[in-house]
Amino acid sequence: MLPEYVLGVDYGTDSVRVVVVGVTDGREEATEVVEYPRWREGRYCDPARHRFRQHPLDYLESLTAAVRGVLGKLPPGAAERVVGIGIDTTGSTPCAVDRHGMPLALLDEFKDNPNAMFILWKDHTAIKEAEEINHAAKSWGGTDFTRYEGGVYSAEWFWAKILHVLREDPAVRQAAHSWVEHCDWLPAVLTGTTDPKTMKRSRCAAGHKAMWHPSWGGLPPEEFLTRIDPLLAGWRERLYTETYTADQVAGFLTAEWAAKLGLRPGIPVAVGAFDAHMGAVGGGITEGALVKIMGTSTCDVMVASPAAIGEKLIAGICGQVDGSVIPGMIGLEAGQSSFGDVYAWFKRLLAWTLEPLGASSSVSREKETIENDLLPRLSREAAKLAPGEAGLLALDWLNGRRTPYADQALKGAIVGLTLGTTPPRFFRALVEATAFGARAINERFLEEGLRVERVIAMGGIAKKNEFVMEITADVLGTPIEVVRSEQACALGAAMFAAVAAGRYRTVQEAQAAMASGFDTTFYPRPENVEKYQKLYALYREVGRMLEGTLRSL
Amino acid sequence: MLPEYVLGVDYGTDSVRVVVVGVTDGREEATEVVEYPRWREGRYCDPARHRFRQHPLDYLESLTAAVRGVLGKLPPGAAERVVGIGIDTTGSTPCAVDRHGMPLALLDEFKDNPNAMFILWKDHTAIKEAEEINHAAKSWGGTDFTRYEGGVYSAEWFWAKILHVLREDPAVRQAAHSWVEHCDWLPAVLTGTTDPKTMKRSRCAAGHKAMWHPSWGGLPPEEFLTRIDPLLAGWRERLYTETYTADQVAGFLTAEWAAKLGLRPGIPVAVGAFDAHMGAVGGGITEGALVKIMGTSTCDVMVASPAAIGEKLIAGICGQVDGSVIPGMIGLEAGQSSFGDVYAWFKRLLAWTLEPLGASSSVSREKETIENDLLPRLSREAAKLAPGEAGLLALDWLNGRRTPYADQALKGAIVGLTLGTTPPRFFRALVEATAFGARAINERFLEEGLRVERVIAMGGIAKKNEFVMEITADVLGTPIEVVRSEQACALGAAMFAAVAAGRYRTVQEAQAAMASGFDTTFYPRPENVEKYQKLYALYREVGRMLEGTLRSL
Repeated sequence: MLPEYVLGVDYGTDSVRVVVVGVTDGREEATEVVEYPRWREGRYCDPARHRFRQHPLDYLESLTAAVRGVLGKLPPGAAERVVGIGIDTTGSTPCAVDRHGMPLALLDEFKDNPNAMFILWKDHTAIKEAEEINHAAKSWGGTDFTRYEGGVYSAEWFWAKILHVLREDPAVRQAAHSWVEHCDWLPAVLTGTTDPKTMKRSRCAAGHKAMWHPSWGGLPPEEFLTRIDPLLAGWRERLYTETYTADQVAGFLTAEWAAKLGLRPGIPVAVGAFDAHMGAVGGGITEGALVKIMGTSTCDVMVASPAAIGEKLIAGICGQVDGSVIPGMIGLEAGQSSFGDVYAWFKRLLAWTLEPLGASSSVSREKETIENDLLPRLSREAAKLAPGEAGLLALDWLNGRRTPYADQALKGAIVGLTLGTTPPRFFRALVEATAFGARAINERFLEEGLRVERVIAMGGIAKKNEFVMEITADVLGTPIEVVRSEQACALGAAMFAAVAAGRYRTVQEAQAAMASGFDTTFYPRPENVEKYQKLYALYREVGRMLEGTLRSL
Repeated sequence: MLPEYVLGVDYGTDSVRVVVVGVTDGREEATEVVEYPRWREGRYCDPARHRFRQHPLDYLESLTAAVRGVLGKLPPGAAERVVGIGIDTTGSTPCAVDRHGMPLALLDEFKDNPNAMFILWKDHTAIKEAEEINHAAKSWGGTDFTRYEGGVYSAEWFWAKILHVLREDPAVRQAAHSWVEHCDWLPAVLTGTTDPKTMKRSRCAAGHKAMWHPSWGGLPPEEFLTRIDPLLAGWRERLYTETYTADQVAGFLTAEWAAKLGLRPGIPVAVGAFDAHMGAVGGGITEGALVKIMGTSTCDVMVASPAAIGEKLIAGICGQVDGSVIPGMIGLEAGQSSFGDVYAWFKRLLAWTLEPLGASSSVSREKETIENDLLPRLSREAAKLAPGEAGLLALDWLNGRRTPYADQALKGAIVGLTLGTTPPRFFRALVEATAFGARAINERFLEEGLRVERVIAMGGIAKKNEFVMEITADVLGTPIEVVRSEQACALGAAMFAAVAAGRYRTVQEAQAAMASGFDTTFYPRPENVEKYQKLYALYREVGRMLEGTLRSL
C-alpha cells in the first residue's frame, strides 16, 4: 500500500513553512518555505514604535505558493494521498474581522490600514492597555481573570491589542464585527467555516492569551471588560464561548481551496494552535520535560497532569491551560521576549559601522561577508573567555520581559563597562544574560514545585549556535537535548493532522510513531556551573535594583 | 629692541609640545610636537591590566627634538633671546631613581624593566594599594593625611604606585634610592640639580598627590607610612620636606643641555608643575572660575583665596594645595578619569567590525576613512535626538571615578537598552554621562560653598567637539568659554618661565599680559536644561544603586 501523508503548516514571523510528513513514521518527505511578500518590505511596520502588522493576503498567498511548491517535490500522485492538514501560527496575533469572518484589511477601504491587519505577537503598541487590564484585574473586586495566565497580562496579548486598536482607530472600531487569532482564522478559511460565531476557536490561544477559562464560563464577563474600558462593550457575545483542542477537526477542505492548493477536497483540517505548543508536541514533550523553542525569542512549554497541578496557580508565567498542548493535560507556557533578537541587535549595532562602505560595488561583497561573519566571529572570540572574566553583567530585557512576571516596559542594561570592554566581551555578557533569563524560567517552575527533569530544545538558535547552547547549558546546570527535526513545529502540526484524520487515537500515540528524536546534547561544564550560580544571583539582584528605573526610562 | 621669548614645555600623555612665546604679549611664535617613540610602540604597557609606563629616554629624546625643531622655525638669532623655560607634565607620574636622581631605567640592568620607568598618571595597577592607604588613613587613629587631597587616596597617585612597585619588584626595591615626579625630574635634569635631597620638588605634585602638607611637617610621618606597609620604611627621609611653587627657579640651564637644545646656557628653568595646573593659568584662571581641561580625561581646577577657604576641607576632590596653581592662593583640583576616552572606547567597539576588512589594499583607504569618520558620524546623528528621547542612561566611570570621591574600582554601565538602540543613541547616552560626571564636580564644589561663577574650557574636546560641548553646557546649565590658545598648558608654562626669569613680579601679572582670551562660548539651551536636570538626578540615583555591584564585578 502506498504511504499516506499529512501536511504540517507552520506560520512563523517571516514566512510560512509547509512540510509533507509520512503518517506512519513521521518521515519528512519535502519542505517548502515562502516569505511573506509585504512583510519583507516592512510596509505596515514601524519598528521604532514597536508596531508590527501583517497583511492577511501575505498569509494566503504564501500558503498557496508553499503548498504548491512542496507538492511539486513529491512523486506524481502523492498529493492525492495527503489525508489531513495541521496548522500552527504565531500568537497572540489577533485581527479585526467583519460579520463573515473576513479580516478588514481584505476589504478595499481598509486594505492599507495597519489597524485592520493581524497584530503580530511582537507588536508592543499596547503597553498602556496591558497596564490598565492588570490594574483592573487586581482592583475590580471580583475574580482575577489573569490567574490562569500567570497573573500578569501582557501587552503582547489579545485584549490589550484589541483595546489599543479600538482606541486608536474609530473606522476599524465601526467596521469590526468580531476578532480572530491567526490560528483560528487559517483553518476556518480553508474549510469555509469563517462565521465568527461558529468558527472553531483555538483552546490554546483562548486560554493562554484571552483570559478564557471554563470556571467563569469562557471569556471574562462583560462587567469586567467594560470596567477596563467601555469600548470593550459588546465584543464578548460576538466572540466565543466554546474552544477546541488541536486534535479536533476544524472542518474539511473546501473545493475552492483544494483546487487552489492542489489537494483533495474534503480532507480534515485540524483546529489551529500556537507554533510553540505544536512545536513542543513535535519535539516530543512529556511530563517533566521543558521544551524550549529558541529563536528570536523563546517559548518554553511544559505539560503536567491535572493531578500534579491540582488547583495550584503558577504565577508569573504565560498561562496554564487544559489541553493547550496535549489534550487532557495542563499546558504551561513561559518564554523570553527576546533571545536571538538580543544577538541580532548587537550585530546591527556593530554593522552600523559598515553602512558608508560599499558605495563602490567592489567592496559590497566583502561588506556582506563581514556582516554575515559578525556573529560567528563574536562567538569564536567570546568562547575563549571564562565566566565572569570580562567583569560584565547584562540584563536581557531589551524587548521587555515575558517570563517571569510579564512586563513589556522593562528594558535591557549592561553594567561593568571599562575602556577594555571589547565586542566579544560585550557579546558574551549578552549571551550570559539570555541564559540567565532562561534560568529564571526554570526557577519559577521549581518554586511552584514543578521540577524540570529534562530540557529539550529546538529552533534556529538550538540548531545553529553551539556557543549560545553551551553557555545556556552551563547556566541552567542541566543537559539540553536538541530535537533532530529542523522543523519540529510543522512536525507537531502534522501530528495533530494525523490525529484529526483519525490515523491515531491520541497525540501521544502520534508522537510515539512520528517523533524525530534528538541529535546533539549539550552538557553543562562543571567548572562553569558554579561560577554561573554566583553570577545568576547577581543578575537577579541587579535586575531587582534596576527594574523601577528601567520601567521609567 | 628685539623681542624676548620664553619656552613653554608641555609633556602630555603621548607627546611633548614646545611653544615659543613672546614675553611681553604672550604671542605664540612657533610650536613643535614630538611623540614619544617607545610609547608609540606600546612597548612597556599592558592595557588589559591598565599598566602604562613611560621610558625616561622618551622624555629626553622628544624634548631635544622638539626644542631644536621649534627653534628652527624662528628667525636667525631668536634662540639667543629665549630667557627662560617652564615645564609642565602629566601626574602623578612617579619614577624610582638612584642616589644621583637618575631613573633606574637609564641604568643598563633596568633599561627594559617597566617598574624602573615612569608610572604614567593613568596606570591603574595600584588599586589594592590605594585601598590600603585609605584604610590606614581612616583607621590608624591619628591625623587623616588624605584630608587635603579630598579625603580619598587614588590608585593614580604617588604613594600607591610606589608601594605597588616595591611589592612587585624586589630588584627595583633594592636599587631605588628615592622617587621623583616627572615634573620634579625634568627641570632638575636640565639644570644639573638631580640630587634627590636638594632637587626642587613641585608643590603641586607633592600637595595634590603625595599627602604633603606644612601642618604635619611635609610628607606623612614614618609611623603612618610603615603602618600601611613596612616596605614604605626609610623613604620619607630620602624624599623631601620642602616644596616649591612654579614661579620659583629650579635652576639654570647647564652648558651641556644648552648645547644639546640650542639655547643659551644659564637661563632659568622654573620649578615644574602638572599640566592641568599650568594650563589653568594659561587659560586665564581667576577666583570663581572653574577651568576644565577636557581631553581623554578631564582635569578641573579652581583657585580660592585662603580667606575664602579658611580651614574648610573640600571632601571628594583631588586636593586643595596652597600655591599649586597660583602662588598665594589655594589650588583646588578635581577631574574625571575618562572623558574623551569614553568616546574613543565606543569608537574602538564599532571599529572592531572593520578589522577583517582591508586585507586587500584597495579598501584599506576606505577603511581608514570610515574609522576616522566614526565619531563625527555618531555626533551628527546623535545631535538630532532630544534629551531623554533614546530612553538610555549611562554611567561614565569606564576608567573608574576620580571626582567626586575617587574610586578606581568603579566601572561604567548603560541602562535602558532596547532592540531599537542604535549606535548614535548609545553614543549620545555616553556623552550625556560624561556631562553628568562634569556636573557632579560642580555640585561637589557648590555643596562646599564654592560657587562656580564661570566655566572655562580647553583641551582637544573643547576645541574640536562641538556636539560634546553643547551637551555639556546644557547639562551644566552654565555657558562654557573656550580658551583661544590651542596650547594653553604650554602657554601657562611659558607664563611661569616669564615670572621665574623676572620679567613679571607675579603670575597674575603674567596672565594679564600674556593670556590668549577666548573664542567660542557654548550657551546652554533652555529647552534642554530642565530635561537634563531630571536626567542628572536619575544619573545620581542609578549611580548610587549600582556602585556596590560595579565595585564587585
